[in-house]
Amino acid sequence: MVEISLLGTGGMLPLPERFLSSVCVRINGKLILIDCGEGTQISLKKLGWGIKKLDIILITHFHADHISGLAGIILSLINSERADPIYIIGPNGLENIFNNLCVIVPELPFKIFFIEQDFSNKNILEINNIFISTLKLDHSCDCFAYSICLKRIGKFNLEKAKKIKLPCKFWSELQHGKQIEFNNKIFSPKDVLDDERTGIKITYCTDTRPIDQIVNFSEESDLFICEGTYGENNKIEKAVKNKHMTFSEAANLAKQSNCKELWLTHFSPSMPEPEKFLINAKKIFNNSKLGTDGLTKKICFN
Amino acid sequence: MVEISLLGTGGMLPLPERFLSSVCVRINGKLILIDCGEGTQISLKKLGWGIKKLDIILITHFHADHISGLAGIILSLINSERADPIYIIGPNGLENIFNNLCVIVPELPFKIFFIEQDFSNKNILEINNIFISTLKLDHSCDCFAYSICLKRIGKFNLEKAKKIKLPCKFWSELQHGKQIEFNNKIFSPKDVLDDERTGIKITYCTDTRPIDQIVNFSEESDLFICEGTYGENNKIEKAVKNKHMTFSEAANLAKQSNCKELWLTHFSPSMPEPEKFLINAKKIFNNSKLGTDGLTKKICFN
Repeated sequence: MVEISLLGTGGMLPLPERFLSSVCVRINGKLILIDCGEGTQISLKKLGWGIKKLDIILITHFHADHISGLAGIILSLINSERADPIYIIGPNGLENIFNNLCVIVPELPFKIFFIEQDFSNKNILEINNIFISTLKLDHSCDCFAYSICLKRIGKFNLEKAKKIKLPCKFWSELQHGKQIEFNNKIFSPKDVLDDERTGIKITYCTDTRPIDQIVNFSEESDLFICEGTYGENNKIEKAVKNKHMTFSEAANLAKQSNCKELWLTHFSPSMPEPEKFLINAKKIFNNSKLGTDGLTKKICFN
Repeated sequence: MVEISLLGTGGMLPLPERFLSSVCVRINGKLILIDCGEGTQISLKKLGWGIKKLDIILITHFHADHISGLAGIILSLINSERADPIYIIGPNGLENIFNNLCVIVPELPFKIFFIEQDFSNKNILEINNIFISTLKLDHSCDCFAYSICLKRIGKFNLEKAKKIKLPCKFWSELQHGKQIEFNNKIFSPKDVLDDERTGIKITYCTDTRPIDQIVNFSEESDLFICEGTYGENNKIEKAVKNKHMTFSEAANLAKQSNCKELWLTHFSPSMPEPEKFLINAKKIFNNSKLGTDGLTKKICFN
């Protein structure tokens, strides 16, 4: 099962009822945070999932509305008595930006592994059956979309296991993804499992123009969280100029990539009532929803 | 008239219903902000006084809960199309900390004058009859209290003006604090005004132990906003260790300095209901109030 919660849905400036765009994903009790503008630690506190189990922070880009709350998140982690290392992943220059922003943070009681993206590597992290991939977007600075996939192994196949004459004491290890050695032969999970089953895929895509590559990248996502900075179709010139999208453009991407559900986010502060324009997305992709701060969903394996 | 609003009343970590300690003071339409932890720009937005007229930012010290929102404030100022210069005042090292935190902020369309305190100068800024003074406190790093005094000139004295035989066309300039020259003689405001009348004094004091110098510094304040990190008297050991105060200690300072009113602020996140302990302050200084986010007051000249 994967749980997803929007911590904020605003772009540029936080508003009292609309914090800056950020999402928290919980898988097997562990947390992944995407972006952390000013105030994200407050929304995370409100959510009630705790912070101590935050293992991975993904940064889309270095505009302040996506990263200015990083010091606050680190301070909250220190205060939670976190001791395990964490990963922070983002564009090149990440560690330098971190060191600047965290000049007001005391010495860390945990290790940070920085992964700075070199653009050539689509799959950047695999940890506990969770695969994190990135795509370079088209914004006014280096900016990346992220997809988080929880893979699901195939069913245990008794006939296969019997055929290779492997004692049943080894079955569990193979089911847990390990290789084992028996009678001088190496056995791997595929020797006792059926083909991999459909997993769960979440894609997060902001800030960008709607480039073609997003369609492949977000293909068949169970949930596609995408920026819709402007609701009205006639804001297209502004969207092009500021390297953002309209609701219609986001909906087109959701449709083309055959996603199950679209959540719009990253609304311009000049749009106090995004609900007025949801119809522009729904006309193109019916399962479009308006992101709201605190909107939460559970996705289970089929 | 001086208006004061608490933008937050928490210490260490912001909570959903208690943002980090910060205060905004409005005098003649101009704003002065003291401290800006993460989220202060959100509280300022809620307050509704605008941000464009923010002329002065005072920083007590460089712990994250007092300064991590600085980049957000600067971005809000840029977004408000501010063009006039602003003052930022704080401990030595201020400009360096600013440059680190604002690495994610684009080029500024306004000038910033930094005033870094050298400890020897009690009165650090005089601007439009507003006098800002500082006092070095006793915390785990360099930390300063601030007092903001709006002075009030004496009444116009017709007899004095007639006696010196100054034509009435000059009176207004003298009343507005300027010197004038007439018949090769220099005249100054005191030549036509009575003695200065009682002004308005606000003192802001956090984070610190209750040192004696605070009594003189905050003497006769109309409003003394003081940290009360811990409500219970038996938290005194913790207060000493962490260089903070209990409610009783703050109330003692208010009493000794003959302040008119005390607002307690900077509550520990471990104290969800500070109202339970207000009695500890009121026993010592009856006009003690519990700071709450958004608490606002107008103080007029007597």
